[in-house]
Amino acid sequence: MNTRNAECTPVYNFNTEIRVRLPETDAMGVVFHGNYFTYLEVGRVDYLTNLGLCEGNQPISEFQNVVVSAHLDFKSPARLNEKLIIDIRTRKIKKASFTFEFRIRHKSENRLVATGYTTHCAIDDQYRPIPVSDHFRKVIAAFEGWATQKP
Amino acid sequence: MNTRNAECTPVYNFNTEIRVRLPETDAMGVVFHGNYFTYLEVGRVDYLTNLGLCEGNQPISEFQNVVVSAHLDFKSPARLNEKLIIDIRTRKIKKASFTFEFRIRHKSENRLVATGYTTHCAIDDQYRPIPVSDHFRKVIAAFEGWATQKP
Amino acid sequence: MNTRNAECTPVYNFNTEIRVRLPETDAMGVVFHGNYFTYLEVGRVDYLTNLGLCEGNQPISEFQNVVVSAHLDFKSPARLNEKLIIDIRTRKIKKASFTFEFRIRHKSENRLVATGYTTHCAIDDQYRPIPVSDHFRKVIAAFEGWATQKP
Amino acid sequence: MNTRNAECTPVYNFNTEIRVRLPETDAMGVVFHGNYFTYLEVGRVDYLTNLGLCEGNQPISEFQNVVVSAHLDFKSPARLNEKLIIDIRTRKIKKASFTFEFRIRHKSENRLVATGYTTHCAIDDQYRPIPVSDHFRKVIAAFEGWATQKP
Repeated sequence: MNTRNAECTPVYNFNTEIRVRLPETDAMGVVFHGNYFTYLEVGRVDYLTNLGLCEGNQPISEFQNVVVSAHLDFKSPARLNEKLIIDIRTRKIKKASFTFEFRIRHKSENRLVATGYTTHCAIDDQYRPIPVSDHFRKVIAAFEGWATQKP
Repeated sequence: MNTRNAECTPVYNFNTEIRVRLPETDAMGVVFHGNYFTYLEVGRVDYLTNLGLCEGNQPISEFQNVVVSAHLDFKSPARLNEKLIIDIRTRKIKKASFTFEFRIRHKSENRLVATGYTTHCAIDDQYRPIPVSDHFRKVIAAFEGWATQKP
Repeated sequence: MNTRNAECTPVYNFNTEIRVRLPETDAMGVVFHGNYFTYLEVGRVDYLTNLGLCEGNQPISEFQNVVVSAHLDFKSPARLNEKLIIDIRTRKIKKASFTFEFRIRHKSENRLVATGYTTHCAIDDQYRPIPVSDHFRKVIAAFEGWATQKP
Repeated sequence: MNTRNAECTPVYNFNTEIRVRLPETDAMGVVFHGNYFTYLEVGRVDYLTNLGLCEGNQPISEFQNVVVSAHLDFKSPARLNEKLIIDIRTRKIKKASFTFEFRIRHKSENRLVATGYTTHCAIDDQYRPIPVSDHFRKVIAAFEGWATQKP
């Protein structure tokens, strides 16, 4: 994998589709910006479920996690009933934290709606960071095609 | 159609499926009761879209509408990532108003989660009631198998 | 207490105020009907907090509860930034369940926005009904001015 | 104004208070991270209302705007019924865009919950950037104590 190019034009190997629901729009006629983070959540769960890392009633089955950073840049609006494609990839996995990257595209108009990322930290019951499990790391590295993934 | 039986055990000819998203749950560990009205909205839009009555960025394409009543009885809880089936039917269409009936079922456990209805009123730009269009009425009556539907 | 009059024009001894937030509105330009159930939740928590029945991170401090029915009739719309008054009263307390009644009024225009109720059931950890505590019952009966409240 | 110090420890001259509502929490027992953007929205509207820049049913009364970037770093969790203080300031105003900065603090425990910003762009009806009005710029510069504010 050419890392430099990957930085410029990240390769997304997974996506999911959502349809804009009425309560997700606001009085400006478009999706309220905060609700895109719900779409990222949906995409992340589908991505992790596809990898067998999300089972049952936990977002990630092997450990608890909290979101430590969330960022979105908005490129164009989306409206009621429109279908959006959520592209998801794992950008990196560090010792206790990991970052997912997202791209939201308008399905029928093929335009960019938003790009962004969320960074998560694996935690124990007292909200203290714990190492990401090896299994989690290996499954994602294999899926993303990382030759060697070092924390 | 035997109307009496239909009252007792309504026949649903359409359903849609949703998966419980994290922000739809609350700190009690289950879906917040108010969020089920979002699921009804999703079901209603899918139902109307299937009938060609919902096109573009309007919930109903032929006229504006407002919800005048919304009711749900909750039978059992639903949790994160669980799949729910939303059964939808039109219960009746009056001159300016119409009522949809819903049944929400837990997909894998086949248990009843909630039942309820929403009543809507067709309105003009000043929020005054207007008659439901004949086309809307006929399409639904045909789909629901109503022999003769009189407002 | 004159029950007949109470049925016709319920007396509300408590209210709370909210202001419509942008994500609570939808693309129709008004508050999404399902979001009014959030306003009822806010009103209920404020009502119970005022009576000392809601402390810490539980909706009701003495026992867990689930909503078993939720109903709203919508009278007129509310829009972004508008202030709404939520009137709350307890309508009745039965052995294991209790019903709150609500009236939502537009503050500056003094018009009725919605009326409705929510019925709750006290439950144990397995979601089985349990009796409402005597303390809960007495505090509410005293506040609502019920001469004698029999479950 | 000492810009360097302002960068390190921004001075907040305005704050607003919210209380965590049940539907804002999720099954992890804490506020869903995306819902903090709703709290920023509440803070921003209160900040602009206090300056007379937000009247009626528009987020900003003088021109339409879209959020172009939204970012939050999460420091510690917040739970049901907890009171949070939202500190708000304007970080900068450029030709067509402007950035608000936020700090969310837990009221009773005086700990940092989140910090972040939102960047907005003034737009016309076709979503094209337009210059921020002079009045908007002057009112904010005066409130924030900017000696000279150049776009």
